[in-house]
Formats: sequence, C-alpha cells, structure tokens
Amino acid sequence: VWKMLTVAVCVALLGYLQAQELQGHVSIILMGATGDLAKKYLWQALFQLYLDEAGKGHSFSFHGAALTAPKQGQELMTKALESLSCPQDMTHSQCVELKGQFLRLSQYRQLKTAEDYRTLSKDIEAQVQREGLREAGRIFYFSVPPFAYADIARNINSSCRPGPGTWLRVVLEKPFGHDHLSAQQLATELGSFFQEEEMYRVDHYLGKQAVAQILPFRDQNRQVLDRLWNRHHVERVEVIMKETVDAEGRTSFYEEYGVIRDTLQNHLTEILTLVAMELPREVNSSEAVLQHKLQAFRALRGLQRGSAVVGQYQTYSGQVRRELQKPDDFHSLTPTFAAVLVHVDNLRWEGVPFILMSGKALDERVGYVRVLFKNRAFCVQGERHGTSEQNPCLPRQVIFYIGHGELGHPAILVSRNLFRPALPTQSWTEVQDRPGLHLFGRPLSEYYAYRPVREQDAYSILLSHIFHRRKESFITTENLLASWVFWTPLLDSLDREVPRIYPGGAENGHLLDFEFSGGQLSFSQQQPEQLVPGPGSAPQPSDFQVLRTTYRESPLVSAWPEELISKLAEDIEATAVQAVRRFGEFHLALSGGSSPRALFQQLATGHYGFPWAHTHLWLVDERCVPLSDPESNFQGLQAHLLQHIRVPYYNIHPMPVHLHQRLCAEEDQGAQTYAREISALVANSSFDLVLLGMGTDGHTASLFPQSPAGLDGEQLVVLTESPLRPHQRMSLSLPLINRAKKVVVLVMGRMKREITMLVSRVGHEPKKWPISGVLPKSGQLVWYMDFEAFLG
Amino acid sequence: VWKMLTVAVCVALLGYLQAQELQGHVSIILMGATGDLAKKYLWQALFQLYLDEAGKGHSFSFHGAALTAPKQGQELMTKALESLSCPQDMTHSQCVELKGQFLRLSQYRQLKTAEDYRTLSKDIEAQVQREGLREAGRIFYFSVPPFAYADIARNINSSCRPGPGTWLRVVLEKPFGHDHLSAQQLATELGSFFQEEEMYRVDHYLGKQAVAQILPFRDQNRQVLDRLWNRHHVERVEVIMKETVDAEGRTSFYEEYGVIRDTLQNHLTEILTLVAMELPREVNSSEAVLQHKLQAFRALRGLQRGSAVVGQYQTYSGQVRRELQKPDDFHSLTPTFAAVLVHVDNLRWEGVPFILMSGKALDERVGYVRVLFKNRAFCVQGERHGTSEQNPCLPRQVIFYIGHGELGHPAILVSRNLFRPALPTQSWTEVQDRPGLHLFGRPLSEYYAYRPVREQDAYSILLSHIFHRRKESFITTENLLASWVFWTPLLDSLDREVPRIYPGGAENGHLLDFEFSGGQLSFSQQQPEQLVPGPGSAPQPSDFQVLRTTYRESPLVSAWPEELISKLAEDIEATAVQAVRRFGEFHLALSGGSSPRALFQQLATGHYGFPWAHTHLWLVDERCVPLSDPESNFQGLQAHLLQHIRVPYYNIHPMPVHLHQRLCAEEDQGAQTYAREISALVANSSFDLVLLGMGTDGHTASLFPQSPAGLDGEQLVVLTESPLRPHQRMSLSLPLINRAKKVVVLVMGRMKREITMLVSRVGHEPKKWPISGVLPKSGQLVWYMDFEAFLG
Repeated sequence: VWKMLTVAVCVALLGYLQAQELQGHVSIILMGATGDLAKKYLWQALFQLYLDEAGKGHSFSFHGAALTAPKQGQELMTKALESLSCPQDMTHSQCVELKGQFLRLSQYRQLKTAEDYRTLSKDIEAQVQREGLREAGRIFYFSVPPFAYADIARNINSSCRPGPGTWLRVVLEKPFGHDHLSAQQLATELGSFFQEEEMYRVDHYLGKQAVAQILPFRDQNRQVLDRLWNRHHVERVEVIMKETVDAEGRTSFYEEYGVIRDTLQNHLTEILTLVAMELPREVNSSEAVLQHKLQAFRALRGLQRGSAVVGQYQTYSGQVRRELQKPDDFHSLTPTFAAVLVHVDNLRWEGVPFILMSGKALDERVGYVRVLFKNRAFCVQGERHGTSEQNPCLPRQVIFYIGHGELGHPAILVSRNLFRPALPTQSWTEVQDRPGLHLFGRPLSEYYAYRPVREQDAYSILLSHIFHRRKESFITTENLLASWVFWTPLLDSLDREVPRIYPGGAENGHLLDFEFSGGQLSFSQQQPEQLVPGPGSAPQPSDFQVLRTTYRESPLVSAWPEELISKLAEDIEATAVQAVRRFGEFHLALSGGSSPRALFQQLATGHYGFPWAHTHLWLVDERCVPLSDPESNFQGLQAHLLQHIRVPYYNIHPMPVHLHQRLCAEEDQGAQTYAREISALVANSSFDLVLLGMGTDGHTASLFPQSPAGLDGEQLVVLTESPLRPHQRMSLSLPLINRAKKVVVLVMGRMKREITMLVSRVGHEPKKWPISGVLPKSGQLVWYMDFEAFLG
Repeated sequence: VWKMLTVAVCVALLGYLQAQELQGHVSIILMGATGDLAKKYLWQALFQLYLDEAGKGHSFSFHGAALTAPKQGQELMTKALESLSCPQDMTHSQCVELKGQFLRLSQYRQLKTAEDYRTLSKDIEAQVQREGLREAGRIFYFSVPPFAYADIARNINSSCRPGPGTWLRVVLEKPFGHDHLSAQQLATELGSFFQEEEMYRVDHYLGKQAVAQILPFRDQNRQVLDRLWNRHHVERVEVIMKETVDAEGRTSFYEEYGVIRDTLQNHLTEILTLVAMELPREVNSSEAVLQHKLQAFRALRGLQRGSAVVGQYQTYSGQVRRELQKPDDFHSLTPTFAAVLVHVDNLRWEGVPFILMSGKALDERVGYVRVLFKNRAFCVQGERHGTSEQNPCLPRQVIFYIGHGELGHPAILVSRNLFRPALPTQSWTEVQDRPGLHLFGRPLSEYYAYRPVREQDAYSILLSHIFHRRKESFITTENLLASWVFWTPLLDSLDREVPRIYPGGAENGHLLDFEFSGGQLSFSQQQPEQLVPGPGSAPQPSDFQVLRTTYRESPLVSAWPEELISKLAEDIEATAVQAVRRFGEFHLALSGGSSPRALFQQLATGHYGFPWAHTHLWLVDERCVPLSDPESNFQGLQAHLLQHIRVPYYNIHPMPVHLHQRLCAEEDQGAQTYAREISALVANSSFDLVLLGMGTDGHTASLFPQSPAGLDGEQLVVLTESPLRPHQRMSLSLPLINRAKKVVVLVMGRMKREITMLVSRVGHEPKKWPISGVLPKSGQLVWYMDFEAFLG
C-alpha cells in the first residue's frame, strides 16, 4: 500500500512539474504601478490572479514599472502592496505566507528608455533560463495616460517582445480617443506595434458581475427568452448609471470628455450591445460573441441632435473656473448629465426604445440594465389579488443590477410573473427578502432575486480573462471604431448645445425627467429660468415665422429647416389626399439627394393619414448604378421612406437603369421604357407632384447646364451626363416636368445661397441654368427654401 | 308703447303659426307599444321628444300599435303611459298639464292587416287636413321581434307611405341578423321596401352620453389629440362591458346569439370605430362620419380563432336545460364571456391592440372605453413626488366611462399629466373628488373628470337624433354588413369551441384574465379542472408528436397544421441562415395559394433572425392578372409576407405577367425575361429552396396534367393553361425546379387526402401527375403534410 501511494504521489508530483514546465513562465509588467488605479484595484487583482493560478502550472513574475527612479519607485510600490488583502475564507497565516510569496515575485523597475525595455527583456529571459523554465508569455498593463501609449508601445514592440512561440498581451485602459478620428489614429498607431490579438482594451464594466452575467443569463434561459427577447414583447430597455459624486478635482479631464465620452460611449454602449446582440449558439466563443456584437453596433440607428438631452450640475462651471483658472465669465458647455434614445434597426428590436442615461450629482448612486416587458395582459377583475406569480397584470421585468443603490450589491432580478430564471447555483444565490424594500416600483418579494455567492472586483475578473485569453470581455479595434462611428455625430451636433442646469442631488426633482416620441427625446418640463445664466443660446426656430413671398414670380415658402420640412410634408400630404379623393390615385415623382431625406423621414413618421396605398412613387432622376448601390437615388428612397411605409410593390417605379445586367445602355431603351410606363399609368403624363432640387450649378433633376438632351424636345425621359461621378444619369425631361400639376423645388443650406441669388435674376435660360426652365405649363410651381439658402 | 308691444307680440305669434304650418305635422307610430322596451324606455323617450320639440313648429301625434285588439291594447298602453316622468326642473302642475297634452295626442291602434295600415294612413291624412296642417313626416318605430319585420315593412311600404314631399323614417332594433348571410338577406328584404335614407337602425349604445361624446371630444381636443391619437402614442385601447347579471330567463334568446352577437358585434364594435376612425373635418356631417366609420371597418384585420377567448358561467347550461327543456346530458357551447383582440391595419393604428371584452356573471357592472397611452417618460429620480400634473411617469389615459361601476355615472376622464380637455361647459361639468376612490389604478384626483350636467337616457337622445335626421348615430346597411363581414368568420370558427367554465362573480379571480401576443389571445392561466364536465374537447395538437417518415422515398414531416407550419418555418429559416452564411444570399421561390399563407404569417411574425435583407424572393408560378389583382399570387405574398418584413425592393422578383399593358402575351417574352433574370442572379439557376404545393389533380406549380410545356425540355419558365380560371399562367418548369438545392412540398387539408394516397403509389409520370416529376437532380426533396392530408 505504501509503495503504491508513494508511486501515486510521485506521479502527481511529476505531472505537476511537467505541467509547470509545459505551461511555462508568465511575466506581468504593470506600467503606472504607483498610480491611483494600480493602488486601488490592479495590484489587488494581480494578487488575486496569483492566488487563483499559481498552483496550476504557470510560474509568475510581477514587474511594477513607472518613470520614477528605481529606489523611490520601489518604495512607493512597496507601500501600495502593503494593503493587499486575502480572500475571507483564508486563514491569517496562509494569507501572510501567500502575500510574502507574491511580494518576493514582485519588483519595481524604471522603464523610460529603449535600453530599459531591452534590459527588462533580457532579465526575464535570464531568469527563465536560470530557473530552467520555458517562457509562456508577457502581459503589459498600460495604467498610464493615453499620451504615453505610443512611446511605450514602440519600446515594447522594438525592445521587449518575447521570443517566438511566446505570447504578448498588452492591456489598454480608456480613453481610447476623443472621437472617431482620434480613435482611429490611436488604433492605427497601436496597430503598427501590435497584432489585434495581442491587444486587450479594458472596459471595466464588462468585468462587473451583473454585466458579465448578461450573456450567460441569456444563454441559460435561452428557451424562454427566445420568445420574449424581441420587439413584440419588450417595452423598453434602460441602461442607467447614476452617480452622486460630481467632477470636482477632475475637471481638467472632465472638461475635455464630458459624460457621454466618459460613460455612455463605452460602459453603457457595451451593456446595450450585450442586451441587444443576437445570441450566438456558442456564448463561449470569443469570435462569435465579438462578431455578433459588431453586428449589433451596425444595426444602431444613427443619432441626431434630437436623440439626446444634456444637463450640467449648477456648480460645475465654478469648479472648472477654479481648477483650470478660467476667467469669471467662463461658462462650460460640458454635459455632466446625458440621456440618449437609441434604436436598434433590425427585425428583433425595431421600435423598441433603448434609453441610456448617466449623470453626476444625482440623488443616488446606482447602475442597472432594466428590460421592461410589454403589458400584454388584461385582468378582468379590477382588484389585484392572488400571488404575484399568478397576476399577469403586474409589471414584468428583468434587471441586471450592477451595484450600489438601495440593494447595495450586484443582483439579477426577474419578476415572478415572468419566469423563474436558471442561474449557475455555485456562483449565484437567492437574495433574502427585505420587507419594505421596493425596487423599480415593486416589492423585492415580487422578484426572483439572485446575488453573487462571492462579490468580485471587476479588475480581478478581467485580469483572469486576459490570462485565459477570453477576448470577448474586451473591446476590439473594430468594435471600438464602430462605437465611435455611432457616437461622434451626436457629440459633434451637441458641441454648442447649452446643457440644462440642475441643482444636484434630490433637489433635481422632475427637472431632468425626459420623454421620447418619434425618435426624439426631450425634457418633460419646460426649461425653467436658468439657475445660473448660461452662455446664451442660439435663436430657436420658433422665434421666426414661416415666411411667404415670391421667387421668380412663383410662391416661395421660407423657414428654418425643420419648419420648412414639416410645412412641405404637410403640403404634400394635402395634395395627395386631394388627388386620391378626386382621382383615386396620386402620382409623386421624387428627386434623390440629401435635402429630401429629412422630408422622407418626416413623411414616414409624422403622417398617418397619408394615402400611401393609393400613391405611385416615381423617380425624377437616377444615377446609372445598380438599384442596390448606396449611390443610387432609389436606395436613398428605400432606406429613408419605403421601409417605413406601406406602398404596394407595384406602385413603386424605379428607373430602369440596370437592364440585361448592364447600366444605361442606349440599346436597352430604358429611358423609352420608363416613358412608356409613365404614359400608360399617369393620365396625360401629368404627375400630380414633382419634387425637384437645385444644384449649385443651376442643374435640376439630372439636367445639367448645356445638356444636349432633356431641356426641350419630345422625349419624356432622357439619358444625360453629369459633371460629377457617376457621370451617367437618367432623368425626366423639362417638358415632362412642366406637364405636372404641381412642381415643388426644395433648396436648403448655405451652399445654395449664391445660386439662389443668381437664379432669382435670370430669365428663361435652361441651357445655362436648367432650373430656370422649370415652369409648369398649366400647373403650379412652389419654391421651398430654408433661411440659409434664401437669406444667407 | 302698448301698441308697439302688441304689434311685436302679434308678429311673434304669426311667426310661430307660420313656422308650425311650414314645419308641419309628424306622426310617430310605435310598433310593439305594449312591449318591455316600450314600457321601459320608448314611451318616456317619446314624451321627452314631445317636451323638447312641441314648441318649435311641429305638431305631433303618437300612435301606439300592436297586434292586440283595440280595447285591450288601449288599456295596456294607458297603463304603460301612467309612469311617464317629467324633467326634475319642471313643476308638478306643468308636468300634469304636459302629460295630459301628450296623452291626448297618443292613441292605441291595432295594426295587423294591410287594411289596418291603409286606415292609419287615411286617418293621419284626414287629421292633418282637418286641422289645416301640412304633413311633414312619419316615424315607424319597430319595437318588435325580427321575424315580424318583413310583414310590417311590406305593409308600411304598400299601404302607409306618406304622400310626396313627406318623409318616412323607420326605426329598427337589433338583432339585425345572425351572421353575414342572414344580415344580408334581411337587409335586402328591407331594402325592397325602404330607401337607405329612410332606415334608422338603432344601437342604443350610440345614444349613451359618454359614447355620443367620443367624436365631439376628439373634435374639440383635436389639436392635442392630433399628435397623440395614433400608434406612436397609444399603448392599447380597451372597450369593456361587464355585467353582473346572467342570462336566466332569457336563455331562449341567448342560446341563439351568445355574447359576441349580443354585445361585441354591435355595441363594442361601434365604440371601437368611434375611437379608431379618422376624424372628419366636419364631425357634424353625417355623411362624412359614416364614410369614415366604414373606412375604419375596412381597415380591421380579419379575425381568426386565436383572436378570441370565450367562457361560460357555470350555471348557464343548467339554466338552458331548465328553460328550454333540454336533456340532462345537454351542455351548451354558447359563450357568455368573450374577449377579442382586434387590430386596425392602417398607418395610424398598426400594432395597437384593441381589446373588446364583454361578459355576464362577472364581479362588477361597468362599461368603458379606455385609451391607455404609452409610457414614454423616464423619471430620473426613483421616488415619485410633486403633483400629478408634473409627473410624466404616472399612467396616462383617456377614459369614456359609459356608466355604473364604482363611479356610478357617465364620465370622461383624462389623466392630469396628459392634458386638460376641452368639453362643452353647458352639458359637461367637473366631477367632485371622492377621496379613496381609485379608478383604473389611480385616485380620482389624478384625473380631469367630467360628468354630464343632466343624465339622459340613450333612447331619448336617439329619438331626438332620428327626429333631426342625424344619421351618424345609426347603423347604415353598409356599416352593418361590414361589421358582419368582420365578425362572421370568428363566429364560425368558434362554433365548436368549448368555452372555459367560470364560477361567476368575484370568485372568477384570475381565471378569465387573458394575454395577447403576436395577434393571438389566450387565457393567462392554464385551463383548470373543469368545474362542471364540459362536452368533451377535441384532441389538442400537442397530444401528438411531429411524425417523421418517408413518402415517395423522400423524407416526410407530418403534424397538426400549426405545428407543421412552425416546423416548416423553422426549417426554412435554418436553410436561409446557412445559405447566407455560405453564399451571402438566399434564393427562395414561393408558390401561391392558401396553404403557404399561414407559413408566410409565421415567417413574418415569429422569425426575428431571418436574413431577409439577403433573401431574394421569386415566384414559382403566377396567374396572368395584373400584380395588384387580388387573384395574383404576388398579391398574396405582398399582403401576408412582404408588408410585414423588410426585403429590399430589388430582391423581390414578381413574374412579368403584365408587360406593355397586356397579360402574358407570347410576343412580350415575359417567360424568357424571367428565365434570364434567374440565370443572371441565381448561381447555376439553382434555387436554394423551392416551395411547392400539390393540387387535387396532381398539379404542382402551374404545371397541370397533360401540359404541353414545362414538364421537360430546356425552357426554364413557361406559359401554361389551367383548367380553372384564370386559365393563363406562368410557371417555373419541372427541369428548373429539379435544379434546386432543396424542394419542399406543402400539402394540407382533408381535400388532399385522395391525391396524397394516389401519388404515394404512382411512379415517375409527370404527364399524368406533374407532382410525380418533382425529383431534384442533386438537391433534397422534403414533404410536409398535415395529419388530415396524410392520414385523412
């Protein structure tokens, strides 16, 4: 027996040694080892990694690094390491021993010059050789300000890369740029030093236990959620991060970033994608998860200025003045509160509002994602009785409670009348009821509520994921840039927005409450008197009236862009209703380009009474590209109008620019075919309404100055040449346009100012300025110009 | 002065007399003058009419009529008239005097034979002449059972029509038929006697004050409601009528009609249309109102069996057995409770659930329409504070409270955080707060609440409307038939449905609560043990497994229809996902007909992950009719699939059966054009999936037995002849079908049983049975048959 035991022990020991040898040595270099983040979280997380992994075959060394000279640096680091704590279930003597081991493996190192990095690399190699080990890999953790990234990265790449067969991982901390351009520059720069698989960009929210559980929860409850996790069942999704602290002491950072860059672009967006993404079959496949996340990003509807409301706590500007030595009349526009309405434009989520909200100096510190389900029940008896499981009329929600708040710890909550969730019992346990505690309007007892068996710090979790190469918990370059592509337009458009000033804390009352409607988000309450005078705001559209006058002897409607578009949409609807009432149908010919886009959106979302079922849609002109080409006018129509309304397929008449698999070939007679179709369907070939634009060169439709075709003659539809690519075009001719019952010319933007002035003075000279040839024979011509085009 | 006054009085008097002469004499004949309705409401309403109108220029006579002999009839009628009451603000002596006048103008008359009617007519004429008046018109009120309608109508038409220049109005009481067919017969019959404008069909709910106020309310609050009254803002609409009484004593009527015919088809549907219809510019124009109502009917989405849940109170069957002398083992299937989910398929209401619910033996007597608005607000601070006007997170609703319930009187309620409604102050007044009273989950104080200044009976209001020819308060023939067109399919499909038995009263608990999802409505709780054994129910789909076997040596999937369709939809989705993953696109060719319709609906509503954006849709065959013709296969695809999903326009490939404004002309080469399009876009002309059906003659696609084209040869697309109209067809050929990677044949229904048996035995004989020629060369063939087609 003893012999056998001895053999067994030896085998185990050998296995251990072999494993150690096989798995090799890992060096972890923490750059910024004496900084705040390192002191607060990172050293502790490294110690935790050591505790978790040291027995499993790897050997470790830890290198704290900074610019500080060796001696002073070592002192600072030793001080930081003193406060390391052990897990609760460890005895004191174990703790002392393990801490001792960890400290012996950790040393400070000044990293400043290329030489320093080379030395580090040699020292690691020497140590590995000395101890008869194989080197497995090196982890460099960048806990340094972003301006230092490039230098460090260059040094690592040129002087501290491990040898072949040994991995390198670099860990980066936000901010990852300031907007799309700077993020791209940073990514390109880093990409010249590191492979994509070598980089681990940290968003520490992905290490928060409730957040990290979102995908596993969706996976483990896949069967019931398959049915529920979509637009048919979800009322809204809220991704919320409220803070009570303000930015005092950090205004130099905050002034540059603001709340959207600080928390929405990263933390809240990451959480949003975890909720919204299609669930891959394998939630443990990093590749599948990242790919699906990227798809979720790509489905996000573009944000507009109206997608957000912003606020700033009252004392912020004063803090900035003090901390950044600004003059007394300085007022910051940096938002410290923002709420954004996000839509995910795919079949699963179409129409479901995702609300992202974050702010400082609010009444409570709390973070959560709340998926509220639609109330699809009717309770025949007024009073609510029976148990909450039975009552289908109580609210139904799933909440990933990130932490703090009234509950005080991470949790996952599911309404009892929804379903009993499956959660891994070794890591999640039921929360004890706390009578009197209400969460999201309902008593805790109405939820199945779970909390982690052991609370873990986000950085510990993420370091373990880095060690185990679980890349799905990090931000890839593609995902990062997709996020900036999404956020940058909003940030740009908010650049000069005056935030609503709020007093801070519970005094905010209903001041920051907001509402959404038709893709727009606005504060529920009217702007009160500013508590502190703001920097003055631009004149509002409603300060001006819609202006009615004439232009080229035809009626002109002029207004600010938004009002102009809604007036035009109203007028088109009225024309349509009248046409359908009189003739049973409405023939509308539309131009492409960007100005009509806002009109299309307005028609699609604001006009319930529009007789689409009886409307025929024609194109005024088209580029000779396939219909599905993003350059195609039809594609714009499809994206901004057709997919939001219900026009019967056979009432849609794209121009036949792509026949027999070729583009606008004369011999395919596309123009003649379109002309025949018009003659056959439109009485007298007289459209009810033709919508035109005007180019800076005076072109309209695709009729350009000096065009040999389409300005006069018999032809209804012509092929033309544009000075701009794609050169080939198909266009309605001026004679056909002038047969219309009504022609509307929409002109918008400062760019059009000059041509507008010019054309106001010229006579009928279509060869020089095709737009001047627009003059319906017996129909009506109306100009719609925004103030910038008309008044400059 | 005196002289002037005398002159003034004389002028006034003359004016009065002239007016009387001008407006003439009105005779009102109440048929069924001694019946329940007459005693309870109609005489009182006639008296009210007299009080309101007698001084305004008309003279009146009132004729109570019935089959009863004169003397006895007069006695019964006198008794009925004794209980007439005067308005509260009238003195006793005034009341006595006016009642006396009314009684003198009222007399009983036996109306049995044509002679009786002739006599009546002559008597009226004589009276008018005798008193030197002009006859203005005659109102006949049919308060009689429907079987008596035809006789009375014939007699009025032939023997009691007033002379030229004098109007006739006949007032009809429900039931107006039992289903669409009987309603149409009744309407045709009545139409042979009366002009449409002569008929006033009463739905007395249209006379209830809160209901009658719906359109005026929408009109007077038009500006604010314009923005709110649509799918973007309305969460749901509930039209509810709860009764505490049961059907005891009325089971002979109730057994024949049931709750849907008794209240939903008429009262609740009328209310629904008042809420849903587009608001005409002139709400006082009868014609406009009726026309818009009709449009609302036409926008209603067809009901299916799954659109409703039905129940029956426990003691109902016993009451029927007793009252109708049924045997002891008789169990009625008549529903006494029904809830129906209605969708209005237009841009205003798309996706908004309208819930209609009515039942007997419930816990409360109450009726209301409740428009619940979406919660589109986010309150940044958890606790709700401030006044209810300020709080955007409280529920927002508009309620037309018809009567009874906890409030006890008609009312209009609008949440204070929604808007302050405008109401005519002379007829509506604010309700006093009643602390402690909660309505729809909120204290009364959270509403702007109004009640009528004077409560009026529905029949009084309607009689006044009849007198003033306000036809918008009545049911036109068109509207009646539109309602039956809507309801009849549901009634038919519920014919053998076993209602859920409920105990009645407050004991119902959550038993009748219901939920909706994807257009379906179901009880929230599982069916409990029946309290009383029901008449036995059909086997449930889930009692059987999906069956997998082979048919013609290819795999066969067989199941109950619903399961079959969902299995097929799943399989198609999986094929699509795989194709898109491998090739970037999915080419799907679809057949027309009714079987695929359920499949289309399933794909449209249940499959969020379907890669529609990368799917090309082709037609397997088409009828030579314009694409917009209801007979067109494409039209079915459009209605049941395309309008619910987002396929890019250029991925949709209808067959070109309508070129150059003519149908399937050989010289237009439509078949060749389609073949070229397939060759150009589908790799190897090999579709990823072709969905076929099988006709009872063994045809598939539009390839019929003995077809000279398409069964073999080179042609990919062919013109064929069908034995059924429309004869001309275009179809993919068998050789093309057999190039597909996968072919699916869907066969459903008992009708297909014989051909299924036959085809199982035949070999490869496409000339005789084209379906037998379906055998993909290198692809896969799978049969999907429901149990009825496969097992008979």
